[in-house]
Amino acid sequence: MRPYKSIEWLEKQKAIRLIDQKILPAKVEYNNYSTVIAVAEAITDMTVRGAPVIGVAAAYGLVLAVFESKSDDLNQLAESFVKADKIIRAARPTAVNLFWALDQMAERVAKQAYTTADEYRKVVLACAKDIEAEDIAINKSLSTFALELLPEEKVTFMHHCNTGALATVDYGTALGVIRMAHESGRKVHVFVDETRPRLQGARLTSWELQQQGISHQLIVDGASSHVMQKFDVDMCVVGCDRVAANGDFANKVGTCNLATVAKANGVAFYVAAPLSTIDLETSCGGDIEIEERDSTEVTVIDGARVAPEGIEVYNPAFDVTQAELITAIITEKGIVYPPFLENLRKIKEL
Amino acid sequence: MRPYKSIEWLEKQKAIRLIDQKILPAKVEYNNYSTVIAVAEAITDMTVRGAPVIGVAAAYGLVLAVFESKSDDLNQLAESFVKADKIIRAARPTAVNLFWALDQMAERVAKQAYTTADEYRKVVLACAKDIEAEDIAINKSLSTFALELLPEEKVTFMHHCNTGALATVDYGTALGVIRMAHESGRKVHVFVDETRPRLQGARLTSWELQQQGISHQLIVDGASSHVMQKFDVDMCVVGCDRVAANGDFANKVGTCNLATVAKANGVAFYVAAPLSTIDLETSCGGDIEIEERDSTEVTVIDGARVAPEGIEVYNPAFDVTQAELITAIITEKGIVYPPFLENLRKIKEL
Repeated sequence: MRPYKSIEWLEKQKAIRLIDQKILPAKVEYNNYSTVIAVAEAITDMTVRGAPVIGVAAAYGLVLAVFESKSDDLNQLAESFVKADKIIRAARPTAVNLFWALDQMAERVAKQAYTTADEYRKVVLACAKDIEAEDIAINKSLSTFALELLPEEKVTFMHHCNTGALATVDYGTALGVIRMAHESGRKVHVFVDETRPRLQGARLTSWELQQQGISHQLIVDGASSHVMQKFDVDMCVVGCDRVAANGDFANKVGTCNLATVAKANGVAFYVAAPLSTIDLETSCGGDIEIEERDSTEVTVIDGARVAPEGIEVYNPAFDVTQAELITAIITEKGIVYPPFLENLRKIKEL
Repeated sequence: MRPYKSIEWLEKQKAIRLIDQKILPAKVEYNNYSTVIAVAEAITDMTVRGAPVIGVAAAYGLVLAVFESKSDDLNQLAESFVKADKIIRAARPTAVNLFWALDQMAERVAKQAYTTADEYRKVVLACAKDIEAEDIAINKSLSTFALELLPEEKVTFMHHCNTGALATVDYGTALGVIRMAHESGRKVHVFVDETRPRLQGARLTSWELQQQGISHQLIVDGASSHVMQKFDVDMCVVGCDRVAANGDFANKVGTCNLATVAKANGVAFYVAAPLSTIDLETSCGGDIEIEERDSTEVTVIDGARVAPEGIEVYNPAFDVTQAELITAIITEKGIVYPPFLENLRKIKEL
């Protein structure tokens, strides 16, 4: 496997390095970000995308803010922290991981002892590093639990969007499950939804699977029924941006179509969900705000206009999949089966 | 409404004029075709697309063949006709209309009287013109029957691919239904599936609706569940490439996903099907050959590569939708409800 990194802290430069996910797979390019504004922009414009890595980028955004401030005054530094928190919070409204990571940072920093500005900076940095390391551990843990769901020798997956090492700090959530299946020695094949409008499946997932040497075929999103009817697809596995208390979850637009098609064709449908994406404060999917994005994501592809000028577009970035379409939710503490209202609460309390 | 024509016979030039559907909506360009080879190529490369207009183009392909031949020998002319039939038959394997139109031509020509080569040419031309005129009449008739399915004042449609005046000689099948709804004075809104991989919805349907002044919003194919959950969609209406005796039908890939999603969300699903697309010789959808097309349709959009070099792609052009997902089939002789096996046979015999 050829290595690549979605995010990395550069100690010397006091900056984070992000792979530019907007230009993959045509170019593999890394850029350094040393200000909170720049990181927030990278989140908004989707240079960095994927709920888990957005959370970690957000955490490092706070780190950058306290290093940007040259003040020796702890109150002023704390103000920079709070100001940065607000800036980053506004970058993407649907990804609960972003809010979760920012909340975690505030909580964790508050628990630490520091007396000088430099100590404070070190504490903020250490907290971000912890969240980063935990993300990898979480993904490997949930992927290991997923092994119990797989046939022994051979498994064919269908996957939507990108949930791999690019979407996370490393390893991946749903793609982590697929990678773990591959590393376990099973014969793995993946049907990769291209995932319009931004084509994360075509651009990123097929690129990651190619780097990892995992057999796959790219399909258009509309082909899933036909593929399930023609081939033995064992399961769909997808990531999520937010899981509500009842099991409804928000994920990239097209997920609910895939889940509906899977149910109609008797194909199992699994959601890889770090516990941080499970939001018991949100009672059901209807309470999740769905971000609408610019019409040009649909009408213009790599600079080429594919629809007439002046037409109306409706471009929701996410959709909500109802809990009854889910076979089980895969977390880092184990597999959660229905009834989700009860069992999600239990696993969060473990 | 601004007028446009998918196909036209040019008497003087002994040629057909086709609008280039590959470059719409960026450019509105017409080209003349005076050889059967050129017409077959235009069918294969999808300069002309849409089952009904492909049928008419095929019919005119035969006309071109008999005009191309300068022979005065009736046997030689008949040979040109048969040779052209074979060339055109190989152009697209799934569209039953193409075969239907060629069969019709042979049948109709055989019934006519002619003694000279020129008379034969006139007969062949007249038969093609009849098929052309019938297509418009059929579309208007099925669209008129569809009015009984619509709410009185306001109707919101969801539509897949392109089935309009571009896909037919004029008026359209599923888009004909939408146009008739609009012309009937109802307040019409259309959610337009962009229809990957070739984006006929984005490129052609939204362009046609724009020309016709019908309110619409373009969506990605994956957004249909979300749209049905958020808005009052009254019905999906789609065209078809072939309907089997049991009601299963082949249409542009993504149709079965839409039908599955419609069923799950309690939205009616109608198929606009000229009787020529109903093929009682095909017993069920499993017997329909599904054309696989080039991988670059998925990986390259308007010259821009959107997936890594060297990956595998699975690109079926069509899918099969099972009869149980269909509310009714709209034909030029009336609405056909389940049980389709019985009722399709009846309407074909009318």
